[in-house]
Amino acid sequence: MSVVEEGGARRRRGGRESKHAERAAALAEDIRPIRPGLPGGWYKPLTDAGVARINEAVLEVLEDIGIGQAIPSCVEACTALGAVYENGRLRFPRALVEDVVARAARNFPLCAQVPELDLHPGGSRVHFGTAGAAVHLVDPVSREYRESTLQDIYDAARMVEVLDNIHFFQRPMVPRDLPDPTELDVNTLYACLAGTRKHVGVSFTSPQRAQLCLEMLHVVAGGEARWRERPFVSNSNCHVVPPLKFGEDASAVLEVCVRGGMPVLLLSAGQAGATAPAAIAGAVVQAVAEVLAGLVYVNALVPGAPAIFGTWPFVSDLRTGSMSGGSGEQALLTAACGQMAQFYDLPGGSAAGMTDAKLPDMQSGFEKGITEVMAGLAGTNLIYEAAGMHASLLGFCLESLVIDNDVIGQALRCVRGIEVTEDSLSLEAMRRVCLTGPGHYLGDAQTIHLMQRDYVYPRVADRKSPKEWEELGSKDVLERAIEEKQRILSTVFPGHLPPAVDAELRARFPVRLPREAMRRG
Amino acid sequence: MSVVEEGGARRRRGGRESKHAERAAALAEDIRPIRPGLPGGWYKPLTDAGVARINEAVLEVLEDIGIGQAIPSCVEACTALGAVYENGRLRFPRALVEDVVARAARNFPLCAQVPELDLHPGGSRVHFGTAGAAVHLVDPVSREYRESTLQDIYDAARMVEVLDNIHFFQRPMVPRDLPDPTELDVNTLYACLAGTRKHVGVSFTSPQRAQLCLEMLHVVAGGEARWRERPFVSNSNCHVVPPLKFGEDASAVLEVCVRGGMPVLLLSAGQAGATAPAAIAGAVVQAVAEVLAGLVYVNALVPGAPAIFGTWPFVSDLRTGSMSGGSGEQALLTAACGQMAQFYDLPGGSAAGMTDAKLPDMQSGFEKGITEVMAGLAGTNLIYEAAGMHASLLGFCLESLVIDNDVIGQALRCVRGIEVTEDSLSLEAMRRVCLTGPGHYLGDAQTIHLMQRDYVYPRVADRKSPKEWEELGSKDVLERAIEEKQRILSTVFPGHLPPAVDAELRARFPVRLPREAMRRG
Repeated sequence: MSVVEEGGARRRRGGRESKHAERAAALAEDIRPIRPGLPGGWYKPLTDAGVARINEAVLEVLEDIGIGQAIPSCVEACTALGAVYENGRLRFPRALVEDVVARAARNFPLCAQVPELDLHPGGSRVHFGTAGAAVHLVDPVSREYRESTLQDIYDAARMVEVLDNIHFFQRPMVPRDLPDPTELDVNTLYACLAGTRKHVGVSFTSPQRAQLCLEMLHVVAGGEARWRERPFVSNSNCHVVPPLKFGEDASAVLEVCVRGGMPVLLLSAGQAGATAPAAIAGAVVQAVAEVLAGLVYVNALVPGAPAIFGTWPFVSDLRTGSMSGGSGEQALLTAACGQMAQFYDLPGGSAAGMTDAKLPDMQSGFEKGITEVMAGLAGTNLIYEAAGMHASLLGFCLESLVIDNDVIGQALRCVRGIEVTEDSLSLEAMRRVCLTGPGHYLGDAQTIHLMQRDYVYPRVADRKSPKEWEELGSKDVLERAIEEKQRILSTVFPGHLPPAVDAELRARFPVRLPREAMRRG
Repeated sequence: MSVVEEGGARRRRGGRESKHAERAAALAEDIRPIRPGLPGGWYKPLTDAGVARINEAVLEVLEDIGIGQAIPSCVEACTALGAVYENGRLRFPRALVEDVVARAARNFPLCAQVPELDLHPGGSRVHFGTAGAAVHLVDPVSREYRESTLQDIYDAARMVEVLDNIHFFQRPMVPRDLPDPTELDVNTLYACLAGTRKHVGVSFTSPQRAQLCLEMLHVVAGGEARWRERPFVSNSNCHVVPPLKFGEDASAVLEVCVRGGMPVLLLSAGQAGATAPAAIAGAVVQAVAEVLAGLVYVNALVPGAPAIFGTWPFVSDLRTGSMSGGSGEQALLTAACGQMAQFYDLPGGSAAGMTDAKLPDMQSGFEKGITEVMAGLAGTNLIYEAAGMHASLLGFCLESLVIDNDVIGQALRCVRGIEVTEDSLSLEAMRRVCLTGPGHYLGDAQTIHLMQRDYVYPRVADRKSPKEWEELGSKDVLERAIEEKQRILSTVFPGHLPPAVDAELRARFPVRLPREAMRRG
């Protein structure tokens, strides 16, 4: 997949390591040990009865409490479909919600700029990617949080282009060097699209700017019809302001995106103990209710429009009220949301990997490891925020992006699970080895066969003996990630936007990323 | 629980933090958010059909391939029970194995020196602890691996005494400063017992030395009868040398321990791809077969003697053949073994937390996080190697012990899971907050109520904002763990061995830990 990187990777590796790399690279997609879309669902944080009770509570919330702050066009569209508007709240009868869930879009792809990178969320199929609106770039060497820039977004995008276990790129940072909101929206989209061919997610600051960005996408796609055929960008849309209120600006953006053929991520980001109930089950109920209200809205605008069930409840540290994205409570919340999406058979997205740690340290590792593997095992279709994020979404770190690619690799290996077959039970191998053979499995045919098909090898995680590790300078994983980041950023310059397209974008829109930043210096 | 630490902890904490600590400390055991023995089983790495097929394969291995290298007393005991000995291999008919499994000891406690710290493995109840035979102590500041000493074992034990999420203390290191094997066995046992009141696990280098250590235990317990009533030490026994051979020395030790009333951990530590099949299912089959062979052996010696189903298969990095305890494959293997123990309804122990990282870095964090939470969610009763271990069991780190206590805390929170009740569904809280209340849950009665009962707060993991964190010196988690380790080691001197007992031990056995090392300097 990493075509653009191959030159760099080959140059770096020598001798034996290079041979291993080539053998791994030669594997066809369907026998690679891990890949996007592996089915999860081995872990069920909720019992079937628990799922049913949560669904009942959700329907009661929607019918009884409803959602406040609907804009007039939302009220109009939803009441036309059967919602009830009174005392400033839009209420959704049970039958309406159930009908919409039954008829809503499912099994639509999230397209990439090239079909081979398309994703197919749904069922229990698991994908990992970035997301966020961090305002800082974390420098793990100086330990500084500095304001994030447009160049940082472009750099993150081209790193994701070559990090195989990061399957989509939702913009993770806000370009703080672009105070003008039109420039901000246009350039965020441009930097993402120019940096990676993988599916991109972005937000828009106003409906007018969403419209402008749709026009950019028509240019990139080669016309509106081709864009609508394969929309390779989705809109991350906080359509609600929890608890149980619509976001007014986001609603207006939502309408433009849905009508413009852009898949929307219906994102409910309440925080348990602050803007959502402190009880985990209650936070799930509220998040599901808020997202289903959004789903009614979307389907009232354009029946069957593609929407992602984006239950993203966060957690508060109840001692301080501050967010705690790396906690065990968060891991449970996210996994439960992944399970609820499967109950409705809707493509679901939730957030994991949001460590509270400020640096890529051991805290960051365990918080990301626990939350990501649980989200994956639960069969969450789209796991956002899974790479690079720190400080509960306040800082993004390019070095962590590299390490997180390894975290996700191991999580995906766990999602893949254990095959139990006549071959894998290994009775013949045991007989060969123990009764007539050498008494070990080192050179056994089964071992050699499984070496590339069943085992995942990390990029920067180290498995050397202490002695070998000392001889190589006693580096920690951060030091190795710094080197790998530098290697990628100095060698990977994706050139997939055709020059004519790029020229048209630069002519018609205020593109600020300098051409020189986009090629080897 | 941490009685010995309270003074230290209180002195350290100031103002607001101190109030939080007191409120947390005041919670009765049964409403603490996490505790030893929380039931897992939410995650099932194997389908029911997969479990059944593995069991069938295990029975075929035991009946057909059998186990080599049985010592004469083992052959005698097992054949008397119905095993068949031919061509140098002991084979176990299916009915014999099934009978032994049905009659074997289950639901026995693992006693501590005080009853309130007893553990009750079985069912899907989860406990975490240390283990290992590391030969190095890791200094994460100088990044050096130096030979481990008796003092290191004692220090690790007294740290475990006050780290609430580490539930038992199996000796994690070998005292390399004691070359004499009798001194090694005697002092390892002494340092563990003097350092912590929690359940202790040790190994013995010969049956004679196992007998000598039993005599020490009689002294500590106040006589053999009282020892047999509440055996507070178990024997970690590698009774097999995989693949499918008994260990001769370990067998002789096993016989002494079983007859001496000591619970044994029947430990099969094959390495997939080297001494066990490379296929994960096959490695599980071999491990279960090896442990069940040990269970027959134990029950042939003393029917109903307490034994732990210790399936500990490890993983090789198949590129190099070296062990890879931090891999996703390891996480799956361990979790599957936890599930198999539940199938047999035997108290099961497996290993997780064995990172390949040489330092407490981000790699260490994610490898420990993933493997430990999966072992816990699978309902593994006794999760060994879960704290302090590095370099795939070659190095032990006291600073990691502190951080791992937090890893386990979050893993246990995940094991506890999500309560779905009328209250936790939170419909009334939503009505209060959204329809008539303030529009947020910050001061809501439910939030306050759940603050201590449902939420786990870490010891050294940090949840501050980047700004507050910078003001406090921009420390990473390792720096905070170093401070916490120093605080514990300078303040925690457990004095639970009565002076008369200690004097008798020192008079009768070659105890080497200086008295001065055991009190505040």
